[in-house]
Amino acid sequence: MDAEPGNPALAAWHDGTAKQAILDFVARVTTQGHPDFVPPAHRIAVFDNDGTLWVERPLPVQFYFALDRIRALAPQHPEWRDRQPFKAALERDMAALAATGVEGLVELVMATHAGITTEAFEALVGDWTATARHPRFGRLHTDLVYQPMLDVLALLRANGFTIFIVSGGGIEFMRTFSEAIYGIPPDRVIGSSIVTRYVVQDGRPVLMREAKLHFNGDKDEKPVGINMHVGRRPIAAFGNSDGDFAMLEWVTSGPGARFGLIIHHDDADREYAYDRDAGLACLSRGLDEGPNRGWTIVSVKNDWKRVFPFDVDTSRA
Amino acid sequence: MDAEPGNPALAAWHDGTAKQAILDFVARVTTQGHPDFVPPAHRIAVFDNDGTLWVERPLPVQFYFALDRIRALAPQHPEWRDRQPFKAALERDMAALAATGVEGLVELVMATHAGITTEAFEALVGDWTATARHPRFGRLHTDLVYQPMLDVLALLRANGFTIFIVSGGGIEFMRTFSEAIYGIPPDRVIGSSIVTRYVVQDGRPVLMREAKLHFNGDKDEKPVGINMHVGRRPIAAFGNSDGDFAMLEWVTSGPGARFGLIIHHDDADREYAYDRDAGLACLSRGLDEGPNRGWTIVSVKNDWKRVFPFDVDTSRA
Repeated sequence: MDAEPGNPALAAWHDGTAKQAILDFVARVTTQGHPDFVPPAHRIAVFDNDGTLWVERPLPVQFYFALDRIRALAPQHPEWRDRQPFKAALERDMAALAATGVEGLVELVMATHAGITTEAFEALVGDWTATARHPRFGRLHTDLVYQPMLDVLALLRANGFTIFIVSGGGIEFMRTFSEAIYGIPPDRVIGSSIVTRYVVQDGRPVLMREAKLHFNGDKDEKPVGINMHVGRRPIAAFGNSDGDFAMLEWVTSGPGARFGLIIHHDDADREYAYDRDAGLACLSRGLDEGPNRGWTIVSVKNDWKRVFPFDVDTSRA
Repeated sequence: MDAEPGNPALAAWHDGTAKQAILDFVARVTTQGHPDFVPPAHRIAVFDNDGTLWVERPLPVQFYFALDRIRALAPQHPEWRDRQPFKAALERDMAALAATGVEGLVELVMATHAGITTEAFEALVGDWTATARHPRFGRLHTDLVYQPMLDVLALLRANGFTIFIVSGGGIEFMRTFSEAIYGIPPDRVIGSSIVTRYVVQDGRPVLMREAKLHFNGDKDEKPVGINMHVGRRPIAAFGNSDGDFAMLEWVTSGPGARFGLIIHHDDADREYAYDRDAGLACLSRGLDEGPNRGWTIVSVKNDWKRVFPFDVDTSRA
């Protein structure tokens, strides 16, 4: 399931202000003697995951995992047939599910992500990821990564950057695939987590996942998660929704050269078009304030030659 | 304040079973084709800090920081003169302080570590560490690192290991010196933490440290902290007290080659001698069960030629 590696020359990007802004920033912070030069230990970049590195529409990938797991567990839970949010999940009734709100979502997560060891959870996610397919593209979710962003990862790596994922998604969910599809190892993945507890079962120590939130890594908690896991303020941040606003604000407010980038999904033909009315994936404040803050706003339609690794570049046609 | 670098040949160790066990383990996991070979991405080692990498007697270093800070803040808190645990802290009455128990300790930490930004805290600790001296040795605390353990860090690094500190001490306290004295960057430091909150003050974003515990990283929480920050089970663990027991148990219970090591402080002449009655630094279960679990027990007296980088090797006299 390894993705096509990225191209450090940003081959999947059209020439334009966005591509140029990325290249200029990297050149400035890596040129010895340049006033914006940054030593390698401080070349830290953070990336949101859903909608920034891979597709998050029509629903975030982890949500499909939860729905499939509800179905798999349903035979042991006959009571779910008549109880929300489980009934809606089993019937894939998205309107009824949405009506259960964040509480419903949390209940689904706890019912599907807890009560097992970390090892068992990793195996479950691995098995699921190896077979589950996206409803529109018919591809594995792990194939639906953005080639232009793989290019950015490759460019930053080639220039001595250390890269972290900073997502509102589950930290242990993402870690099962982050190294294979992005080349980002588990210790460089930051996200939401539930409580785990050390237990010795019949002489064998395990970590049990409990149905209790430990850290909700979205929005204003993104800088908090970065501080907790990285311990240094990054110099570059990449996101796509207002859930990333605080992260971009914090990163780009530091001294010296800073870089903030927001992907605006405006290409319904090749992927999806969504912004101000996109619920959890809403992008509104970022569009309004980003340009004045010096952030680069990327148009999928105009800036990306290819969206996915399997796309053919049709832009030259 | 950079420590003398470690010697990957373990020059500060006497020849003996402990030194040989370390060298043998590293040889086995790094020899291609050996049944115990471990690929570099999984060569992860974890080290306790207090008593394992630097001196923790008569009190853990962070405790001295708290006491000095209480004294510095006292003029703004006249009420502390008559209130425990502050009265005892101001009078350096260790018996009275001990009588306030863990609750007293927590109250001291909250009064001295919270209510400021992460940046201000980092500056405070940095200033303190640059001048505060150990009551017995008269040296900076950051000079009182164990040369034999710097050697082990050097050996592991030379063999492709990734090294994390896993301490019950404060994560942001340790990060201010971990890179300078151990060569361990901030993102590889795991420890206890208080809640931080993202706040925009007059347009400037900061992380405020709040007087509320977020994670207590000692004992059974050490495997939990490793899972949270590393996301993989390490293959080697180094500690010195029963606070490290769960970490060693978890690490050495995994499949394949594993290594656990406990430092037994038994050298009152050159450092300190303490074990079963050492309160928070108690080492009892580790001494009883460690050998049967295959863990290496190190005698400071017999296994270490030098304790500190500034020590002269007197063992050949």
